[in-house]
Amino acid sequence: MNQSDKTWSVSPGGESFPLPLPEEYPGEFERLQQIVQEQRSLGREIVVVMGLGFVGAVMAGVVADSVDRDTGKPMKFVIGMQRPSVRSYWKIPLFNRGIAPVEAEDPEVVPLIDRCVNKKKTLMATYTDDVLSLADVVVVDVQCDYFKECLGNVREGHAEIAALEDSLRILGEKIRPECLVLIETTVPPGTTEYIAYPIIKKAFEKRGLKDAEPLLGHSFERVMPGREYVASIRDFWRVCSGINDTARERVRKFLSDILNVEKYPLTVLDRPIESETCKIVENSYRATLLAFLDEWSLFAERNGVDLIKVIQAIKVRPTHSNMIFPGPGIGGYCLPKDGGLGVWSYRTLMGYDDEIFRLTPMAIDINDTRALHAAELVRDALRNMGKIVAASKIAILGASYREDVGDTRYSGSEILVRKLTEMGAEISVHDPYVQHWWEFEKQESYPATGHSWSRFFRNQERLSELRISKDLGEALDGSDAAVLAVRHQLYLSLTPDDIVRMAGRPIAVVDCFGILYDEGIRRFIELGCEVKGLGRGHIRRIKDQVQKR
Amino acid sequence: MNQSDKTWSVSPGGESFPLPLPEEYPGEFERLQQIVQEQRSLGREIVVVMGLGFVGAVMAGVVADSVDRDTGKPMKFVIGMQRPSVRSYWKIPLFNRGIAPVEAEDPEVVPLIDRCVNKKKTLMATYTDDVLSLADVVVVDVQCDYFKECLGNVREGHAEIAALEDSLRILGEKIRPECLVLIETTVPPGTTEYIAYPIIKKAFEKRGLKDAEPLLGHSFERVMPGREYVASIRDFWRVCSGINDTARERVRKFLSDILNVEKYPLTVLDRPIESETCKIVENSYRATLLAFLDEWSLFAERNGVDLIKVIQAIKVRPTHSNMIFPGPGIGGYCLPKDGGLGVWSYRTLMGYDDEIFRLTPMAIDINDTRALHAAELVRDALRNMGKIVAASKIAILGASYREDVGDTRYSGSEILVRKLTEMGAEISVHDPYVQHWWEFEKQESYPATGHSWSRFFRNQERLSELRISKDLGEALDGSDAAVLAVRHQLYLSLTPDDIVRMAGRPIAVVDCFGILYDEGIRRFIELGCEVKGLGRGHIRRIKDQVQKR
Repeated sequence: MNQSDKTWSVSPGGESFPLPLPEEYPGEFERLQQIVQEQRSLGREIVVVMGLGFVGAVMAGVVADSVDRDTGKPMKFVIGMQRPSVRSYWKIPLFNRGIAPVEAEDPEVVPLIDRCVNKKKTLMATYTDDVLSLADVVVVDVQCDYFKECLGNVREGHAEIAALEDSLRILGEKIRPECLVLIETTVPPGTTEYIAYPIIKKAFEKRGLKDAEPLLGHSFERVMPGREYVASIRDFWRVCSGINDTARERVRKFLSDILNVEKYPLTVLDRPIESETCKIVENSYRATLLAFLDEWSLFAERNGVDLIKVIQAIKVRPTHSNMIFPGPGIGGYCLPKDGGLGVWSYRTLMGYDDEIFRLTPMAIDINDTRALHAAELVRDALRNMGKIVAASKIAILGASYREDVGDTRYSGSEILVRKLTEMGAEISVHDPYVQHWWEFEKQESYPATGHSWSRFFRNQERLSELRISKDLGEALDGSDAAVLAVRHQLYLSLTPDDIVRMAGRPIAVVDCFGILYDEGIRRFIELGCEVKGLGRGHIRRIKDQVQKR
Repeated sequence: MNQSDKTWSVSPGGESFPLPLPEEYPGEFERLQQIVQEQRSLGREIVVVMGLGFVGAVMAGVVADSVDRDTGKPMKFVIGMQRPSVRSYWKIPLFNRGIAPVEAEDPEVVPLIDRCVNKKKTLMATYTDDVLSLADVVVVDVQCDYFKECLGNVREGHAEIAALEDSLRILGEKIRPECLVLIETTVPPGTTEYIAYPIIKKAFEKRGLKDAEPLLGHSFERVMPGREYVASIRDFWRVCSGINDTARERVRKFLSDILNVEKYPLTVLDRPIESETCKIVENSYRATLLAFLDEWSLFAERNGVDLIKVIQAIKVRPTHSNMIFPGPGIGGYCLPKDGGLGVWSYRTLMGYDDEIFRLTPMAIDINDTRALHAAELVRDALRNMGKIVAASKIAILGASYREDVGDTRYSGSEILVRKLTEMGAEISVHDPYVQHWWEFEKQESYPATGHSWSRFFRNQERLSELRISKDLGEALDGSDAAVLAVRHQLYLSLTPDDIVRMAGRPIAVVDCFGILYDEGIRRFIELGCEVKGLGRGHIRRIKDQVQKR
């Protein structure tokens, strides 16, 4: 066997797996045929999940874990499918041992996959797309990213729909015409009808299936990274649609079989473009709510207002309870891109030449660049201590995009690190949840998002050596500034005395997420620190009080 | 007595009251002094409410109705104060009879005022500002409008702060230095510290009170027109602040005495600019949430999506439950102006030259012009029936800005009527809650908002004759188009057959507020009507289905 790099795939745990050779495929398919035949004889529906990423892997587990409501017996057999690549092939052998190929804070993920693979025996994975020909249902969880040409102008960019189109082409070649194809990926509105339908219809025609109408449906996920990950798929409201009456009814039935629809009723919409739009609107809504506070954050800083207290005062109103302070930026996989998919669809798939979108793209632009202002606060706090960024060591506390998860995709901290590095800072990072900050470790092709912000900044070379420290003291030791960037539980309980002791001297402190109470701010100032914070215009007042005494 | 128009004030009910003559003022003040002396001897605090408008009148009632939590006895005596003008003087004699000077859907308003004036005897009104010298607390409910120079560009405009400044000047001249001044008006952030404080401080100095520090506080109302009006003042969360420790504590105590703070705890913020900003942020937030859907509404119309169903599907998420379809525009007194007060403050009171506000003013601009697109739909629906707006009679169903209230301030329907009139339409209007559409009846100075949109449109002369019909059949009779503009209960239960019968023929129907279910749309089409709707792109699909049959 050729042992060159190209044919091995290495898991994050360091285990190497040889990629399958062409001559292994027929055997794999025969094995699958046999398994499927057995499963069919048990009355089970064969479900293939395409794409074993963040969503697909857990969705496969949820489907495989589902049972008939009357008999309590499993009625689905699930095969996860991932085409073999150096980057991802390792997922398949691990999956087949019952090991979840995704890291998750949710303690339910590991036992779910283990249970379905090893106990219930309703779940497996394969690398051959021939498996599609055996499916009754295919769930498509292939990524569709949005590529931004600029930082702060989401209109300049495009949906990266090629991988999805490839998958759809293969589907058209392989599936039986009566197979239901359920697209779960968040896609530009219109994708099911304007991209998937013609691709599969034409493939059917090429196969001589002239009268076969592709049975296409769309139902987006609403997964939320964190400790409720599985529940966010299974125990949450779903929206679905089908391209015609048959497809719509098949989708409704399939989702009703696998999800907790009694407690979280399903919404069935007429057309795929309606459910596709639904996902884009709901995430753009949230992106807009968050972006809205950016300008008020600046207003607050400049005019003596503590926006954190203002938001607390507003949030008591039930109609305003979803107001959230935006921190140093809005990350996660969805909010930075979904609005872009909408804007792109209107122009590209729908063919309109005018610009009807004003708030949706502006919100993304504001969110994407918010961290640049956090860097300004670091600069100004250092300046007040007679220092400059270029000659400073800056400790970033928190790398993830959200509190108490290890997900770093598009986090505000990333932009902050890039900007401060561009300005010449030496950066150390601490995060209790993040093992690998892939965005820096493998800039060309990290698994999370596919492309990197690094191209928008200079001086980024040094960052390939950036490692996340698990030791807060190590990260803070000798630093000139500390940035409180994420509301991780650990940081909420840190005291100013802790931080100054670990740093070894008074430092500049920048609170990006309303982490410091007024007493904390006061204590930092008493200890000789310079404190600034996003949206925290009252710090000057506290400083005056301390200095008056 | 001179009986010329200038010295009489006529109530909406038609009763005429002579304005007080200069020689009557001393007597009125003596009477007040006597009353106040009696009330003080009962241990009661003297509260003067300046401004008996929408908020002040009911606030006066709420204060007068409050009792000591231990003894159950009234501890405040309230005097409503309104300077006598032809437009408003009638409020005072009516108030003193126990008649509420505001129309309200809330059945609690009328008995509240009656009870306090006639039974508890804790409430009265006067026209002389000398009463201010007798006050322990003055609550300022003087309007502060925002004047827009253009339609659709809120940046071009200014806060109309002159009336408030006048009131503050009088306060500075009259009040005792230990009197607490609580500003309840929604004001540009900074008003209490940057406008009120210097005015009153200088007036004190002029009076020789060199060391007296004005006791200023700010606490905005969150009133909501409708059936819960009184509760929205008394039984709702309040935010307050004071200009120094004494003022802050006095405000906290005063509000705790009169409001249901046990169930709805008070938020005490440090500085007036923080509570002033709070109000502007919370209303701008809501304006932005609503504006956000405008572009998606257009996307939906053009691409076969029913945005109403999409919103219903999204609203099931608790984090998104405040999503509301914006209808033909966003009216009411607050949402169209409050963001403008913020933008104006930043530039004018705070003295900044840059533009940090992007979403806040854009949201208002979008909301202010949304009704223009509703007019486009009317035009297009008529065109599909071979008609033009200029030769059509158009019935507008709903004049108020919100369902099931009679408040027409800045309603989307107003802009729609103005635009269709500009295009030459003949307009009829029905609304079960609105007696007078003041915006048209007295264009130069109607009581609601002080200035009129009429200047942005041509052809508005005819509108001075516009009257609201209480008879739906009369409004619809012979019309070419009907616009469902407000979600009034009555309209939700109308059937297409009803409407077509009342119109006397198939008409163009434009649904501005997601009022029609799909069956209603289908029935209208079956009856030969042309149907369009804001955000309702699926109507074309229903039409195709009907025509295929």
